[in-house]
Amino acid sequence: MPIPMEPWRTAIAHSDQTGIWLRGYDITALMARPFTDTVFLLHRGRLPGEGERQLLDAVLVGVSDHGAGAPSCAAARLAASGNRQSLSAAIAAGLLAIGDEHGGAGEGCMALIREGVEESRRDGIAIEDAAARAVERAVQSRTRLPGLGHRVHTTDPRVKVLFDLARQHGVAGDGVAFVSALERAAAGRIKTLPLNIDGALAAILHDLGFDPPAGKLIFIVGRVAGLTAEVAEEYAREKPMRIRIPVQYDGEPPRTIE
Amino acid sequence: MPIPMEPWRTAIAHSDQTGIWLRGYDITALMARPFTDTVFLLHRGRLPGEGERQLLDAVLVGVSDHGAGAPSCAAARLAASGNRQSLSAAIAAGLLAIGDEHGGAGEGCMALIREGVEESRRDGIAIEDAAARAVERAVQSRTRLPGLGHRVHTTDPRVKVLFDLARQHGVAGDGVAFVSALERAAAGRIKTLPLNIDGALAAILHDLGFDPPAGKLIFIVGRVAGLTAEVAEEYAREKPMRIRIPVQYDGEPPRTIE
Amino acid sequence: MPIPMEPWRTAIAHSDQTGIWLRGYDITALMARPFTDTVFLLHRGRLPGEGERQLLDAVLVGVSDHGAGAPSCAAARLAASGNRQSLSAAIAAGLLAIGDEHGGAGEGCMALIREGVEESRRDGIAIEDAAARAVERAVQSRTRLPGLGHRVHTTDPRVKVLFDLARQHGVAGDGVAFVSALERAAAGRIKTLPLNIDGALAAILHDLGFDPPAGKLIFIVGRVAGLTAEVAEEYAREKPMRIRIPVQYDGEPPRTIE
Amino acid sequence: MPIPMEPWRTAIAHSDQTGIWLRGYDITALMARPFTDTVFLLHRGRLPGEGERQLLDAVLVGVSDHGAGAPSCAAARLAASGNRQSLSAAIAAGLLAIGDEHGGAGEGCMALIREGVEESRRDGIAIEDAAARAVERAVQSRTRLPGLGHRVHTTDPRVKVLFDLARQHGVAGDGVAFVSALERAAAGRIKTLPLNIDGALAAILHDLGFDPPAGKLIFIVGRVAGLTAEVAEEYAREKPMRIRIPVQYDGEPPRTIE
Repeated sequence: MPIPMEPWRTAIAHSDQTGIWLRGYDITALMARPFTDTVFLLHRGRLPGEGERQLLDAVLVGVSDHGAGAPSCAAARLAASGNRQSLSAAIAAGLLAIGDEHGGAGEGCMALIREGVEESRRDGIAIEDAAARAVERAVQSRTRLPGLGHRVHTTDPRVKVLFDLARQHGVAGDGVAFVSALERAAAGRIKTLPLNIDGALAAILHDLGFDPPAGKLIFIVGRVAGLTAEVAEEYAREKPMRIRIPVQYDGEPPRTIE
Repeated sequence: MPIPMEPWRTAIAHSDQTGIWLRGYDITALMARPFTDTVFLLHRGRLPGEGERQLLDAVLVGVSDHGAGAPSCAAARLAASGNRQSLSAAIAAGLLAIGDEHGGAGEGCMALIREGVEESRRDGIAIEDAAARAVERAVQSRTRLPGLGHRVHTTDPRVKVLFDLARQHGVAGDGVAFVSALERAAAGRIKTLPLNIDGALAAILHDLGFDPPAGKLIFIVGRVAGLTAEVAEEYAREKPMRIRIPVQYDGEPPRTIE
Repeated sequence: MPIPMEPWRTAIAHSDQTGIWLRGYDITALMARPFTDTVFLLHRGRLPGEGERQLLDAVLVGVSDHGAGAPSCAAARLAASGNRQSLSAAIAAGLLAIGDEHGGAGEGCMALIREGVEESRRDGIAIEDAAARAVERAVQSRTRLPGLGHRVHTTDPRVKVLFDLARQHGVAGDGVAFVSALERAAAGRIKTLPLNIDGALAAILHDLGFDPPAGKLIFIVGRVAGLTAEVAEEYAREKPMRIRIPVQYDGEPPRTIE
Repeated sequence: MPIPMEPWRTAIAHSDQTGIWLRGYDITALMARPFTDTVFLLHRGRLPGEGERQLLDAVLVGVSDHGAGAPSCAAARLAASGNRQSLSAAIAAGLLAIGDEHGGAGEGCMALIREGVEESRRDGIAIEDAAARAVERAVQSRTRLPGLGHRVHTTDPRVKVLFDLARQHGVAGDGVAFVSALERAAAGRIKTLPLNIDGALAAILHDLGFDPPAGKLIFIVGRVAGLTAEVAEEYAREKPMRIRIPVQYDGEPPRTIE
């Protein structure tokens, strides 16, 4: 006995007798173009220009992997170690370690950029001044500035590559300007806090017209390339249950139920 | 424009104007009874007797936790380390490490028990003989017998507790008989392979009338008690991104794109 | 070449040559007691009294399930529909639908209770007045009060059961007092907003000494009982890929790449 | 008190003072190239040629999305509906619906191809004959042939695009030959079972040198492009908890606890 149900509405993809359509384009036409075009299309609703695609390529590659010890890769391998029945389960476990603290600071930085750029327009102040205000507010509220700072105090080589590409292709705009101003303002007001990959990714994605959630979502698209390779290696190279995490118990000593 | 949709059918739970019903019982009546009764009810379709409940309690407690270094606990903590926005994401990451290799061998053992018990009835042979055949088949096909064997070659204290309880409450049946025979047959034909917690859990759940998937599902119900506590401790006691897994790269040396 | 690694510290569980220990108690002793005792112990660090256990039982049963159409159950069934290789993957998918909006409002309500109770002590005002202030702040900031309000404007029968049990066992304290005052204050200042199960769960868990994250974590422990049964039913009763969600595309019409 | 731990070994990625390295290549050099090159590199250990990249592009685009009602997309949206605190949780829920039944048949098909190609070499028979044997075995064991068959009995337009591209770029090899022979043999022995996207993906990935697990893993890389867009749309366009799945209860009628 069928029940009337409101169908889910979507503007992203659909298939019918005539084929499969992504944002209105025939998927077979898109298959002749780079995958990155489709990533851009699905999120932005239009195909990228040449420079835009190269920037998105650089972002996706830049976050794809940097070592098996990162929480996302390690969680994926642990899942693969105990559960060899589902590759997707291991990849999913890896994704679950991605949040504001790991791989996801780009989202907060994109929100900060958007707020700063709007403030600059609304109040008729320079981007530089909007960035200084943002730094001041972070100091007052004792919050961290997402996109700034490294664990190891060096510059991240990926940042320069992204910004050089952005300038070369005419993609650099308010986003790059704002985070650069933020870095300078923070150096003057707090301490040297170099832009990290999350901040650079945020600036580029803002200038490509993405919304803040893309700061996490595009990271995820890139990182899945690494996670899938890590999980494939774990399956091919390591035995199940090979992982032993050393633990030290410091709780209640042995006691009996009275 | 609503579209007719076939509703999902279920015999487990529903709610309507008169209340919330689990397997036909008013949830407010069930709330006056132990949670374990509801676990039993949801899976078996009827309420347990006193002895049945105590056995299920023992199984659930027995698998709830044994240390933060197990893949399920470690994966949950890694997720909590990188992603502090979602407690359920960390618990889910922990569950994803549960498979045939970790926490899930009970499912395979329950299938083995069922097969052996059916063979015994069909061929009119003793449970002992059906177990001996199962061992022989495992030897021939060079497969492991799920539910037997420890990493450390000692007996697991939880096994005796479960079997003593099962006998005391008259719950022990074909399941306990079959895995005990399996252990003896394996000792004679292969080597000493003591029953582990997965094998004992499988025997008890079989004798309580559960189907093989319960070998994983009931483990999950019990283990979630531990995972939730582990994740609560990680949030309360540790900073994000505190986990560093040591990694050694042994792949291609530095090379340049020609 | 082993690398020195700081072991993870934990006060929850450990195992050694002498056995498996949960919060200092031998797991084999705990196996002779209700599972709910272990849930309480793992989270609170001590065993519950009789009344405390009955309250926790009532909470766990109360949130275990109320129908296969809830996001958590539906997500679990969808995962089981496409991926029959991993029971834990389906349960994990179900958990991932649990957040502030579904099953998790108890966490926010527990934080509100704690804040209100502290404010009452600090400022020497009655719980009633602290609750009135909380309502006023919600009105001013246009935020919802977690734990109040139903989609369908009726009372939830589980709330009365929980509060009656809490009073009967002397467990009802500041938590029950605060949310009851909150309900009255909201009715006077906003509109009739009956306490829902999240609010009742929050009050009880506060009075049992749990921290706010338990508002989500204990919900998860209870709901996993339902999710495991739903997934077992999906596997046993339905074919893979039987689920068809009706979708309506309202995006770009067909277009060609220029 | 640090404990010596065996580091995890990996040949995929590492970072040190000199930079970040993927399979031995400096990540900043890879950032100047298409993302698809890095996907290929991480999985295959070398960079692709021009034709190989175009084939992988076509595969990734071809599986990226085809509608919000697929289990993976629907599970992701359900998670986003109940849990708005974690974008990665919603994407992970979507991935968990990917298995042998949805999106993952490519893995089984790649195993079938590998087996058939090896059999052909070992026994000195034609690929055609090896395919005929595979069909015969499936008929005898009453199993489905992964990669063949559509729900709707039409051809999938993506298959022809992939095979045309493969031939045009000289990528088509044993994989394409085997699945084409499989399709013909099945038509003669069973019934018309057109190659589906999983079968085409499997053939192409085999001919690109990937191992069977890539049949699922590369699907996942492509599908994450769609899932991230679907989740972004759900967050931006829909309210939490908007999803209602119609359910029909057909279990025990109301009963009381005796």
